Parts: sequence; structure tokens; C-alpha cells
Amino acid sequence: MANVEGNKLWGGRFVGDIDPIMEKFNASISYDQRMWDADIRGSKAYVKALEKAKLVSTDEMNSILTGMDQIHEEWKKDVFVIKPEDEDIHTANERRLKELIGAPAGKLHTGRSRNDQVVTDMRLWLRDAISTLREAALQLVTTMVERAAIEVDVLFPGYTHMQRAQPIRWSHWILSHAVALSRDVERLQEIHRRVNVLPLGSGALAGTPFDIDRDLLRQELGFDRISLNSMDATSQRDFVLEFLFWGSLCLNHLSKVAEDLLLYSTKEYSFINLSDAYSTGSSLMPQKKNADSLELIRSKAGRVFGQCAGFMMTMKGLPSCYNKDLQEDKQAMFDCFDTAHAVLQVTTGVISTLKINPSVMEAALSPDMLATDLAYYLVKKGVPFREAHGISGKAVFAAESKNIALNHLTVDDLSSVSPHFGEDVAAVWDYSSSVEQYSAPGGTAKSSVMAQIDHLRLWIKTQAQ
Amino acid sequence: MANVEGNKLWGGRFVGDIDPIMEKFNASISYDQRMWDADIRGSKAYVKALEKAKLVSTDEMNSILTGMDQIHEEWKKDVFVIKPEDEDIHTANERRLKELIGAPAGKLHTGRSRNDQVVTDMRLWLRDAISTLREAALQLVTTMVERAAIEVDVLFPGYTHMQRAQPIRWSHWILSHAVALSRDVERLQEIHRRVNVLPLGSGALAGTPFDIDRDLLRQELGFDRISLNSMDATSQRDFVLEFLFWGSLCLNHLSKVAEDLLLYSTKEYSFINLSDAYSTGSSLMPQKKNADSLELIRSKAGRVFGQCAGFMMTMKGLPSCYNKDLQEDKQAMFDCFDTAHAVLQVTTGVISTLKINPSVMEAALSPDMLATDLAYYLVKKGVPFREAHGISGKAVFAAESKNIALNHLTVDDLSSVSPHFGEDVAAVWDYSSSVEQYSAPGGTAKSSVMAQIDHLRLWIKTQAQ
Amino acid sequence: MANVEGNKLWGGRFVGDIDPIMEKFNASISYDQRMWDADIRGSKAYVKALEKAKLVSTDEMNSILTGMDQIHEEWKKDVFVIKPEDEDIHTANERRLKELIGAPAGKLHTGRSRNDQVVTDMRLWLRDAISTLREAALQLVTTMVERAAIEVDVLFPGYTHMQRAQPIRWSHWILSHAVALSRDVERLQEIHRRVNVLPLGSGALAGTPFDIDRDLLRQELGFDRISLNSMDATSQRDFVLEFLFWGSLCLNHLSKVAEDLLLYSTKEYSFINLSDAYSTGSSLMPQKKNADSLELIRSKAGRVFGQCAGFMMTMKGLPSCYNKDLQEDKQAMFDCFDTAHAVLQVTTGVISTLKINPSVMEAALSPDMLATDLAYYLVKKGVPFREAHGISGKAVFAAESKNIALNHLTVDDLSSVSPHFGEDVAAVWDYSSSVEQYSAPGGTAKSSVMAQIDHLRLWIKTQAQ
Amino acid sequence: MANVEGNKLWGGRFVGDIDPIMEKFNASISYDQRMWDADIRGSKAYVKALEKAKLVSTDEMNSILTGMDQIHEEWKKDVFVIKPEDEDIHTANERRLKELIGAPAGKLHTGRSRNDQVVTDMRLWLRDAISTLREAALQLVTTMVERAAIEVDVLFPGYTHMQRAQPIRWSHWILSHAVALSRDVERLQEIHRRVNVLPLGSGALAGTPFDIDRDLLRQELGFDRISLNSMDATSQRDFVLEFLFWGSLCLNHLSKVAEDLLLYSTKEYSFINLSDAYSTGSSLMPQKKNADSLELIRSKAGRVFGQCAGFMMTMKGLPSCYNKDLQEDKQAMFDCFDTAHAVLQVTTGVISTLKINPSVMEAALSPDMLATDLAYYLVKKGVPFREAHGISGKAVFAAESKNIALNHLTVDDLSSVSPHFGEDVAAVWDYSSSVEQYSAPGGTAKSSVMAQIDHLRLWIKTQAQ
Repeated sequence: MANVEGNKLWGGRFVGDIDPIMEKFNASISYDQRMWDADIRGSKAYVKALEKAKLVSTDEMNSILTGMDQIHEEWKKDVFVIKPEDEDIHTANERRLKELIGAPAGKLHTGRSRNDQVVTDMRLWLRDAISTLREAALQLVTTMVERAAIEVDVLFPGYTHMQRAQPIRWSHWILSHAVALSRDVERLQEIHRRVNVLPLGSGALAGTPFDIDRDLLRQELGFDRISLNSMDATSQRDFVLEFLFWGSLCLNHLSKVAEDLLLYSTKEYSFINLSDAYSTGSSLMPQKKNADSLELIRSKAGRVFGQCAGFMMTMKGLPSCYNKDLQEDKQAMFDCFDTAHAVLQVTTGVISTLKINPSVMEAALSPDMLATDLAYYLVKKGVPFREAHGISGKAVFAAESKNIALNHLTVDDLSSVSPHFGEDVAAVWDYSSSVEQYSAPGGTAKSSVMAQIDHLRLWIKTQAQ
Repeated sequence: MANVEGNKLWGGRFVGDIDPIMEKFNASISYDQRMWDADIRGSKAYVKALEKAKLVSTDEMNSILTGMDQIHEEWKKDVFVIKPEDEDIHTANERRLKELIGAPAGKLHTGRSRNDQVVTDMRLWLRDAISTLREAALQLVTTMVERAAIEVDVLFPGYTHMQRAQPIRWSHWILSHAVALSRDVERLQEIHRRVNVLPLGSGALAGTPFDIDRDLLRQELGFDRISLNSMDATSQRDFVLEFLFWGSLCLNHLSKVAEDLLLYSTKEYSFINLSDAYSTGSSLMPQKKNADSLELIRSKAGRVFGQCAGFMMTMKGLPSCYNKDLQEDKQAMFDCFDTAHAVLQVTTGVISTLKINPSVMEAALSPDMLATDLAYYLVKKGVPFREAHGISGKAVFAAESKNIALNHLTVDDLSSVSPHFGEDVAAVWDYSSSVEQYSAPGGTAKSSVMAQIDHLRLWIKTQAQ
Repeated sequence: MANVEGNKLWGGRFVGDIDPIMEKFNASISYDQRMWDADIRGSKAYVKALEKAKLVSTDEMNSILTGMDQIHEEWKKDVFVIKPEDEDIHTANERRLKELIGAPAGKLHTGRSRNDQVVTDMRLWLRDAISTLREAALQLVTTMVERAAIEVDVLFPGYTHMQRAQPIRWSHWILSHAVALSRDVERLQEIHRRVNVLPLGSGALAGTPFDIDRDLLRQELGFDRISLNSMDATSQRDFVLEFLFWGSLCLNHLSKVAEDLLLYSTKEYSFINLSDAYSTGSSLMPQKKNADSLELIRSKAGRVFGQCAGFMMTMKGLPSCYNKDLQEDKQAMFDCFDTAHAVLQVTTGVISTLKINPSVMEAALSPDMLATDLAYYLVKKGVPFREAHGISGKAVFAAESKNIALNHLTVDDLSSVSPHFGEDVAAVWDYSSSVEQYSAPGGTAKSSVMAQIDHLRLWIKTQAQ
Repeated sequence: MANVEGNKLWGGRFVGDIDPIMEKFNASISYDQRMWDADIRGSKAYVKALEKAKLVSTDEMNSILTGMDQIHEEWKKDVFVIKPEDEDIHTANERRLKELIGAPAGKLHTGRSRNDQVVTDMRLWLRDAISTLREAALQLVTTMVERAAIEVDVLFPGYTHMQRAQPIRWSHWILSHAVALSRDVERLQEIHRRVNVLPLGSGALAGTPFDIDRDLLRQELGFDRISLNSMDATSQRDFVLEFLFWGSLCLNHLSKVAEDLLLYSTKEYSFINLSDAYSTGSSLMPQKKNADSLELIRSKAGRVFGQCAGFMMTMKGLPSCYNKDLQEDKQAMFDCFDTAHAVLQVTTGVISTLKINPSVMEAALSPDMLATDLAYYLVKKGVPFREAHGISGKAVFAAESKNIALNHLTVDDLSSVSPHFGEDVAAVWDYSSSVEQYSAPGGTAKSSVMAQIDHLRLWIKTQAQ
């Protein structure tokens, strides 16, 4: 009988008992309590709209506001006591309100449904989370850009297909990742626009029959717009899916950063040394210094994509309006945030503390990486590129056959491959001047790299406003 | 030996033979030929930049332009002959150019790499594909909005948890999907912004050492911006991943439309009849009329997400710059486009031709769906909502116990549950007036629905500009 | 300085401090403590092998065994205190051992690496988890089979394409799911075979240089076989991926059960009533009874597949041997187990407590569902099936045109469609005899259904052994 | 009108026209024609069962068998003409049969549905595909094992966390992958067991009302068992999902092989040289030799997992029995087969043709990789491992501080770290004897590696039977 009159939000009608496994299966309080602050903010705004609609008196409103502030204090001080029947954060806060202020608490839910309440809470929470991630991503971009500026002169091999390709600036490598992350920041801004829409006032599915001023709610809660259709508002989770995909793509970018740095920190490359703060040792092998931080960064792209894939599959083929399946939204959202936040911070730490070995980097440059420049030398003498490419390839083959470096072929050797070679070919074998040729926008010449840095510094400044 | 001097783009150096399985494994011509037009457009623009940089003469440029126009004709007339050594569309077009115009063809690739060429082609192709999808999505939204406008007065049950919840307008249901699709259109626009960036001039990874005017290329090819960093430009596939996710989310929305309509077209619901044009029969059961179109629409959300998941996994953990793994990008992109395009068109056909059964729809409304309104009746008499909700629940229970409809409880019956009930409770039992109460923005009252229609019509007009 | 000499397993070499975010990012103790029992069992077996290899004395062994037993007690009584430096369960247990018994604790890790230790623990844990799931799945199959046996005579519509297709037995429907689950049980057995392989003695990657008797370890820990190659043993996570996929497939099956039951519990179908124990109400709508349990069951297929997709992506493209990326294995494994376990139990509860409405089910049968039988009537008169199918289709069309039920067509009506119809066609319109015709193995005739029940009962008995 | 009487399998009833986009959307002939042989085999067996059940005469049976043989010839000679109305392979073959033999063709489908026909065809097709993959995988394992046997004596660094860890045998590395692949072969065998089950005779969903001898069909078609429940038989696609996951896991293993070999073939490692047959060049950079084959192998793990993820999502939440959504099964299955088959063959080619550089491999071994052995030296002197590990770590630190190799520390240097060091420490610094210590089963000592080779050779022999 207790259950019939119990304090479940839907208590009035049921006569059976619930299976304890089902009860636990159904409850979300263990994780959705994280939205306690958003839930309180939402309720405080809502009671103001109720008062305006004359559904609560000014006294009742004030009582509810005071009660909510007290609940806020309890959560903040970590003294809020969750009771067994609190299946979710909404039930918990309302149950506590009733304990604190009595009867008026029963008016708070007028015209509201958990369907519009929960999604309002999620949007409030995610809005803040996005700000936090945006800061963290901007911090990482800034770290990258400033490091690139400081180390703009260091050269090292650029790779394609994991093979040494052409000499590039180390700063150019850093900026290639900063540029990718700047797109992530822009995408986050777009998601924010779609997150920052008020669903409250949509009821369970049909809207609200009371004079709830949705624009007042919007202003109180700082949303940009109000939702257009109550059925869509209560059951769409696009903003969660977009956020999960955002996390997947951003962490995919960072898995690339990690993979590069893992390669560069191998004994074989030895281009960089990770700070001990981001390394660990081996329980067995005393000499090991492992770049665990980078491996963890790399791994998390999978984790977050798993959240995206899982929730997308959960949503597939559901009928309209709220279905309990949607309850899978929150753990995925929280985990994506926590993971992306940690990864961004750790990556910033890694990038800002690693040491580079410029001499090893430059020693890794080899004359065969200038074979393209050798072809360009011929192009400048009027040889069509396809032919020049073939000639340069033969020169590489000749050097390999002789087991010497490409730049150790004599002019005679080269002339036997093509009559276009002359003494001036010697100028090709300079890495710095090679790199400086690549001065079109986006290239690896110093001027082009500095232009990228300027561009990004300005962009960061714009973002910070 | 033929291979050493052969017409592979990288022919000059190799002495071994290639494994035929490997050759087929490596080749992309079977699918990337689809970008023939984009490849020709890209080359035509590039030769103009080469001419400006004095890397080809004006005559050579004209010769290449004429040759490219001829190749265009061959593709258009479907007479272009692919040869066994044409491993991709770029090789095929250049090989053909050489056949047509001879020596100057060898200058076309000067300073260009397949790495920047292929991604330029993809962006050109996808830009057009996005326009096509945008049109198709707008057509579907328009169809939905206009159908909603015509059938604005039809009522039927709104469901949550697949259970009848509250009476709503059929038009409100249609618009809930139109609103979701309008977000898809907006997202497509955002992707377009990031697709429409010129990578050409980035070379293999380091940029270009020639005076290639990238802004000229941008204008010639109608791009909005040029890429910022050559390493990023040649190897990032964010725009493909974003597009694949876009397709996943859009088709997820349409899987919801399909699921709803599949339910509504069952014998049990009988709310709608699908046109025969979108139904099929059974090879065994003569009476069957199956909504195959809807099942196919529902299924494709999985297919496209599979492309997204697959390519995302392929990208995970790759090091910087071009890796051959990226070759997985194109089939995924093509399949996503083809699938989304077909699904949007078929859905438009389904929506515009299905017939509704308004009398069945309205007959499916039942008094218990007004239990919320019964609670609101009490709220309006000053009963706190929580209490009112409990009382209404007891009234439902009383009716069920008596095995009568909720509206057949007498005022006496109701009074025994709560003294607040009076004769005026009779006014609750009217579906039309119930629906009309939900008149806050986004609700299911006629005025709110018409406001949604107005909003979307205006939005469509803006989009069409 | 504390850190240099600290109690990190890899403490000897580091001079820097660790970033607190990195520390948390790196630590797994918050979740891997769940394997405390497996870790202790593994260490107890290992010290016996050390003693046999004379790497510890018998006294030292006994001391370690006693210490481990005490740690076991502490965990069991929930009084084990995790310290900040305990980054994982292995470190925690060994740290505690040292506190309890002093010096000999330092010998326990001889020749062992966390790489072989962690995977041994996981295999021990998962072996038990698989047993638990197997029991739960068998319980569900048993519940289904016995319910089918009791309700073997109830008829209702079978659906294809969500359209009424042919009359079938309700028991046949139940068994279709039981059969699918029986395959899940078999697959679990296959995974168990591959889980139950001992990796201990593989060291970090190269094996062990001590006389560790791996077969003794195998026997002590109850494994079937020992791993073949130490590099593979320490870094393959096939068994985790297989388990995650198993969960995905099993929950996919249960999403089908849930979807069917959700349909059957709609007002429109009204075939079943879910027990209140597995339903919940609405915070807004007093009349609602929602089948939340079924929606949650349906949703979890996505969740578990997300774990599978995520960890698969994490593994993609990793180089050989242990990489820290593998640390993603445990949370996925635990979540898959917890979810599958809860879903199996809740589904068993749902199936065993739901009530069916046989009269509604039978009332949903309609004569057009016998159109196939009508075609078969003609086949038995010698009409080729294709022609018979066409004739039956025309009869359906004739009945629809007249707006009457198919069985209300007169013999004259039917004769105008085909001369093969006679008075004996009346016998076709009996649902029970229709169903009884489908008596080939696997069909819906009572004898065929009883044969399925017998088969499954025997199979269950075999499994229980 | 043509359509009403048309030759669609479900032609009798429809009066509307079909949308051409819908027609294409619905048709599967473009890809399911690949099962032409399986479809013919299935029909030939089925007509025998029809004859036994006296549903066709012996003459009719013979006529159908002859017609089917002729259709077989047409497909084999690639002269079968697909007509626009052939929506799938089943329709096409039956349509052609009618053209060839007339009326009796109309009896072939008696009691059969496309639902049981299509899944029978798929199982026949996949059974053959599995045999092919099994052969290819065994060929790869054999290649690996024999290469390991030949190069058993070559040492090189083993890596964990991408850092040099301990000296191991190259053959031990090869075998680590062979062992993983041997599990793939075993899993394939398990899937085969579940594929090789006959669904024919299950009709559309309810079974068959005719005396179809399903055991005769089983024998004719070489299946091991018959399906247990007709609803399950016609709509479960577990065998497809299992196969797609098999492909994902197998290709995940090969992505690991590829990643290792990509590392080993970098300039920085230079452990191996890929055959030119499996390499390509650059369109821009003449010196490049890219390991495209390995990159493609690595990439395909994503592709196949995408098929698995996509089809799993498509299946999620479908109701019982056949739904058109299932049509997504075939392209996924075909693509998984084609991809896995190509990858296995290319990997075999790569492994059998690559050249190793033993001197470079051995030169990559360094004394710090023996730090574990140094700790073990102390263990053998009675120092507890934890302490020994710490001492060895300090020795590494001392050597790094002096900027000398670990083995260049004098005994005095070492003694200052621990008094346990003596002159005999010199014996530690021998890579060969280090490796030989790891002689427990599964370790990298020669005897352990040879035992692995013997084990696998025997296993291959067993498999071949």
C-alpha cells in the first residue's frame, strides 16, 4: 500500500510491487545527480513563470525559491541525502523541497513533465560543459601556436606513408594540428547554438495549456531561442549525438597528435623527450620510460566514438516522442565530456613540457628527401615535370645502386641521366633553402609559417571575446 | 622492364612486378571515376595558375584546356576508355591528355601532388552533392509543411513510451519531423562551409615552391577560402567524416518517421494507407501489402552509420600527412550520398502520396487520454498539481475498476475521489477543446501549429535564396 | 624526492613529478578494484610456482599466502583502504602485502609483469562472469520454454513487415526467441573456451627466464590450456572483443523481444499486459502505464554495441605487445557484463509475469490471413502455385472492393475469379485447422511446437550438466 | 494495367504504379545476382522435395531440373539477360525458367517463400565463402610458420609501449601473429557450424503445410542440421553478424601486423624491405617507396567493422519475422568477404616476399634492454625482485647520467649502487644468452619458439584434413 500513496512522481495508480533489479535498472539517480545545479536553476525559473501565470502565489514562489536555494547549499556542501525512492535528480530535488517547505512544493510541477524538465537540465548542463571544453581546446591551440612561434626555425623530416618525404619545419607540424583543433572549436560553437534552445514548456509531448511565458523562461535561463515543436523538443537528442560526434572527431585529431609523438619519442626517431610528468615506467623492465600519456590519448578516440555509436544505435528506429530508451543519453554525454576534457588537458601538458632534440631532427634529413627539388631544378630548366620526375627517380636509383647519398652523385653521374644537370645543381642540397622555397600560403617556408601563426593568434583573440 | 618506363605516375624507379591482386587492391578507378568532372575542372584551373606562374606557355595552356574539354566530352558521352594501367581517375585523365596533346601534358602536374589533387576533386564533388541533398531535404520539408497546413484540423493520439498519451493534431506530428529535418539542412550548410575550402597548392605535404596563385585557383573553382596548412590540407578528412555523420543523423531522423508510419499503417492502428507506389506484395501471401519503402528507409540509418563508423575507425591513430588508408574515404562518401539522396526522395514520395483515415484516427482518442486535463481542471480549482495528479490517477483507477470509460464516471463517483469535482467537469471531455488549450508556442493548439507552419514557410523561403 | 623512492611499481628511475590530471587519467584503481579476488587468486598461485622454482622459500610462500588471505578478508569485509598511490588493483594488493608481511612481499613479482598479471586477472574474472551470464540466459530460456508449454494452444497473428501475415501459435512466437537465445548460450561456451587459457608466465612480452611451472599455474587456477606465445598472450584482447560482441548480439536478440512486446502491449494490439512490477507511470499523465522495462531492454543493445565499437576502434592499428591503450578493456568488459546480466534478469521477470489476453489475440485473426491457405486450396486442386497465388490475390481484391471479409465471398463470387472454387472452400476459414497444417519440423502446428519444446527441454538439461 | 497482371512475384493485387526511384531502391538484383548458383542449387533441391510430396509430377520435376541446368549454363557463360522487372535473383531465375519450360515453372514456388529461399541461398553462398577464407587464412599461417622456422635465429628488439623492451627472436614476433590468426581460423569453423543449417521449408514465417521432407532437402544441399523454428529461421541473421564480426576481428589482427611492418619499414627502423610488388611510388616525390599494401591492410579493419556496425544497427529493435530492413544483409556480407579475402592474400604476399635486414635488427639491440636481466642477476643472488628492480633502475639512471651505455658501467660503478654486483655481471651483456633464458613455454628461447612451430605445423595439418 505504501507504494500506492508513495512518493514516486507517478504514485497514484499502481498496486503491484516493483522488482528490485528493475528498480535499479530503471533508476538514473546514480549518475544524473550530476545535473543537480541545472535542475535547481530550471525549477527556479519555472516557478517564476508559474507565478506570472498565477498558478502559484508570490508567497508560494518565494517559498519555493528559498527552498531551492537551501537544496543548492546542501548539494554544494555535499550533504544532500539521496533516499532510496529518489529514482532521479528531479524526484530527489522535489522530494527534498516538499520536506523543506511542505504543500507549495506540490505546485512546482504544474504543467511540467519530466520529459521537458530532463532535457532542459541536460541543455543547461551541456552548455556549461561546452564552455569548459572550449576553454580547454583554446588553451591547447594557444600552447601549440606559441610553441610553434618559439621553435619556428627547427627543421625535421615530413613524412607521408610513414616514409620520409620532404624537409619541413617542426613548427609547421605543430600548426597542422592546431589548425585541425581550431575547426573543432568552431564546430563546438555550432553545437552550442543548437544546444542553447529552451525546451521547457513543452510538457510531456503536447505543450502546455497554461499561460507559461516561455520567453520569460528563456531569458531567465539564458537560452537564445525556444524550441519550435513540443514533440520534437521533448524527444530529439540531436544535440547529444552531435556532441558525442564532436568528441569523437576531436579525439580522433588528438589520436593523430599522439601517434606522431609516440613515433617521435621512440628510440628509433628520438626527436622528442616526453616530460617525466607524462611518462611512466615498467613494473618489470627498469630501463623503460613509457609514453603512457600519449597511448591513453590515442586510445580515447575509440572510447568516445563507442559512446557515439552506442547512443546512435539506441536512437535508431524509435518512434516519436519520449521513450525510456532515451535514458541512455546522459552517461554517454558525461563520459564524452570527462574524457575529452581530460584528454585536452593532458595533451596541453604534454605539448608544453616535451623537449625536442633539434640536432637529431636535422640529422634525420637526407639528400634523397630533396629528390622533388631535384626534379623542380629540372622543371626550372624547362623540362616537363613528368619527365623531370622520371629523371630524378633515375638519379635516386643511380645513387642507391652506388650505395651513396643522392647529393654525392657527381655532375658527371647526373649528366649521364640527363643533360640538363649542371654545376648549379649543388645549390639544391641545402635543407634550409629547400624549405624556404615552399612559400605559397600554407607552405612550410618561414614566412608562410609565420603567417599561419599570425592568423591563429588573431583567431584565438577573436574566440576569447 | 616495361614497368620501369611505364606510365604509372611513379614509374621511374621500380624494378619489380606488381602482384595482380595487389594491383586491384590498390586501384581506385572503379569508383573514383565518378569524380571525372571534378578532376577535369581542377586541372583546368590548375593549368591557368601554371601559366600565370610561367611554368607553361599560353599555347601549352590552351592546348591542355582544349584537351581537357575533349576528355570531358568523352566522359559525358560515356566513350572514355579506361585502360588497365589507369589506377585512378587522375592517372586516367592525364594519360588520355598525353595521348591527345602529347608533350605539354607532362607539365600539368608541375608542383601538384595526387595528395592535393584528390582532395580538391573530392571537395568539388561533395560541394555539388551537398547542393543536391539540400534541395532534396528542402523538398521533403516543404511537402511536410504543406501537408500539415492542409490537414491541420485532424486529431489523433499522441504517444509516449508507445502508449496513448494525449490528443494532438496530426499536423503537429508532421511538423515535429519537419523541424528535425530543418536542423539537418542547417547542419548541411555548416558542413558546406568547411567543404568549400581550397587545398590545391599544398603539394604532397609541404606546399608548393612555385608561384602558384592559390587565390586565383580559389576563384576559378569557386571556393570560399584557401586551406591554412599544407600538411593538414592534404590529409585531413574531417569534411568526409562530418558528411558521413550528417547522413547518419539525417537518416536516423527518417528512421523515426518510418517507424511511426509503419506503426500507423499496421492493421492495428490503421491510421494511414500507403500508396501502392511505395508498397509491395508477398511472394507467398496474396493478401499482403507491405510498406517496404518505410522498412528500407528505416534500415538505411544503419547502413550510413556503418560508413561513418568504418571510416572513423580507419582514421583512428594514423600519423600525420597522407597515408594510403585515406583511400577508404571515397566509397563511404559516395554511398552516403546515394543512400541519403534516395531515402530523401522516397520519403518525399511516401509523405506526399499516403492517405490518412481521419475517422479512425479520431476514434482512437479515448477519455483516459484526458486524465492530464482532469488534473488540470483541479489545478484550476486551486489543487496543487501533485495532489491533482494523484486524484486524477485515482479516478482512472476507479473507472478501470468499474470497467467503464473515464468520462462515464458520474459526478458522484468523482466526488468520492475528491470534493473538488463539480458538474463543470463535463467540459473536460472534449478532444478539440482539450487540444486547443495547448496554445503556448510549440504546442498542439491550432494557433500554435499555424505559427509553426508560418515559421517553416518563411525559413524555406530564406533557404531557397 | 618521495616519488623517486616511492612505492610506484616503476619507482626507481623517475625524477619529475606527475601532473595530477595525468595521475588520475592513468589510474585504473577506481574500476579495476573489482578484480580484487582474481588478483589475489592469481598471486597465490604464482607464489606456489615461485616456491617450486626455489625463488621464494617455503616460509616466504606461506607468509605471502597468509598475507593474501588477510587481504582477501579485508576486501570481502569492505575494509580494504585504497591509498592515493595505488594506481591499480595489482599495486594496491602488493602494497598492502608489504605492509602486512614486510620483505618477502618484494619477491612476489619475480619474473612477473603487470602485462601478464592483468590479463590473468581479467580472464579469471571473465570466466566467472560468463558462468553467471550463462545461468541467467538458461533461466530465461527455461522460462520461455515452460511458458510456451503452458500456453501452447493460444493462437494469434504472425506478422511480417509489421503486417498481419498468417495465424500462428503464441507459443511458436515465444520459442522463436528461445531458440535465438540458445545460440547465445552456445556462443558463450565457445568464448569460455578461449577465455580459459592461462597467460601467466609470459612476463612483459618475452616469457619468463625462471623455472616457473606454467602447467602448475594452469592447474592451480583451473585453466584448460596455457597460452602459446608470450607476445600474443600479453597483448591480445580477442577474448574481450568476442565477449563484447557476444553481449551486442544477445542484447540485439532481446531488443527484438522487447520491440514485439512493446507492440503487443500497446492499446492498439492489447495482446498482453505487463506486470506493474515492470511498468512505471508518468509524472504528468495520470492514466499512463508505461512499459519502461521493455524500452530499457531495447535500448541496451545500443549501449553494449557502443562498448564493442569503442574498444575495437581502440585496438585498431596498434603495434604488437602491450600498449597502454589496452587499459580501455576493463570498463567495457564490466559494463557489458553488468548490462547483459541486468537485461537477462529483467527480461526473465517480464516474460514470467506478463499476462496475455487470448480472446483479443484470437480476435485479431482475420480471414485475409488465410489467403495463402486459399491459394493452397487451389494448389491441392492442381493449380500451379503462381497461378493460385494470383487467383487468391484477386479474391482478396474482390472482397476489398465489396468491402466484405474474404470469407464472406460466396462460392459464386469466387467462381467468377476461378472455376476451381467449390463448396469445400468453406473448410479453409478455420484458424485452428489452418495452423495445424503447418506440421513440418519448425512449423506452427501443435505437434511441431511440442517437438521444439521437447528439443529445448533436453538441450537445457544437457547444458545444466 | 501491365503491372496488375505483370510478372512481379506479388503481381495479382496492385493497381498503382511504382515510383522509379522506389523501384531501384527496392531492387537487389544488382548485387544479389552473385548468388545465382546458390539460388539454382536451392531450387533444384526444392523441386525434388516437391516431387516427393507429389506437388509436381516426375516429368515436371525433370523439366524444372533441366531448365535450371540451362539457366546455370547461361550464368556461367555470362549470357544470362537480366530484365528490368527482375527485382532480385530469385525472380530472375524463376522468370527465366518460365520462359524456358512454361507452365511447370509456376509450381516451383509451392509452399516456398522468398523469406526462406533468400536465407537458404545466403547460407549456401556463405558456406563456400567461408571455405575460401579458411584456405586463405591457413595459407597465411603456413607462410608465417615456415618463415619463422627459416629465420629462427634472427634477434631484434621487442617493444612494449612502442619502446624497446627486451631482445626477442624475429621468429617469435612472426609466430605471435600466426597464433592470433589460428584463433581466427577456429572461430570461422564455429561460424560455419551455425551457417550450415537449413532454413528451407520455413515458408514466410509459419512453416510449410505440405509434406516437404526437410531432411531430404538438408541432405541434397549438404547442410548439417535443419532450423528449429520457422519464425527464427526466416528472420535471424546471426550468421551474417557473426561473419561480419569475424572479418572485423581478423582484419584487426592484420592491422596490427601491418602497423608493425610499417614501423619496421621506416627509414628509422629499417628492419625490413618490402618487395616492390607490394610498394608504390609517389606522383610528386621521386625517391619515395611507399608501403601502400600495408597501409591498405591496416585501413580495411575499419571498412569491415563499418559493415558490422551498420548491419547491427539496422537489426536493432526490429520486430520478429521478416522485415525488408534485412535486405541490408547481402552487400555487407559480400563486401566483408571480398575485403577479407583480398587482405589475407595480399598479407601472404607481403610476408612471403619481404626481406629482413638482420644486421640492422641486431644493431638495434642495446644494453639497457637487458636491465631486466640485470635485475634478475640480482634476484639470483637473493635480492627480492622489487629491490632488484629498483637497483637496476638506479644503474640505468647512473649510466644515463654518465651518458654511457649500461654495460659500460664498471663493476665499481655498479657496486656503488648495490654491493651485490660482482665481476660475473659481465655475463649479463649477451643478447643471445639473454634470449635463451626465456625458455618456459611460450617464451622467446629457441627451444620455445621451435615448440611453437611444431605445435602450429601439427595444427595446420589437422586443419587441412
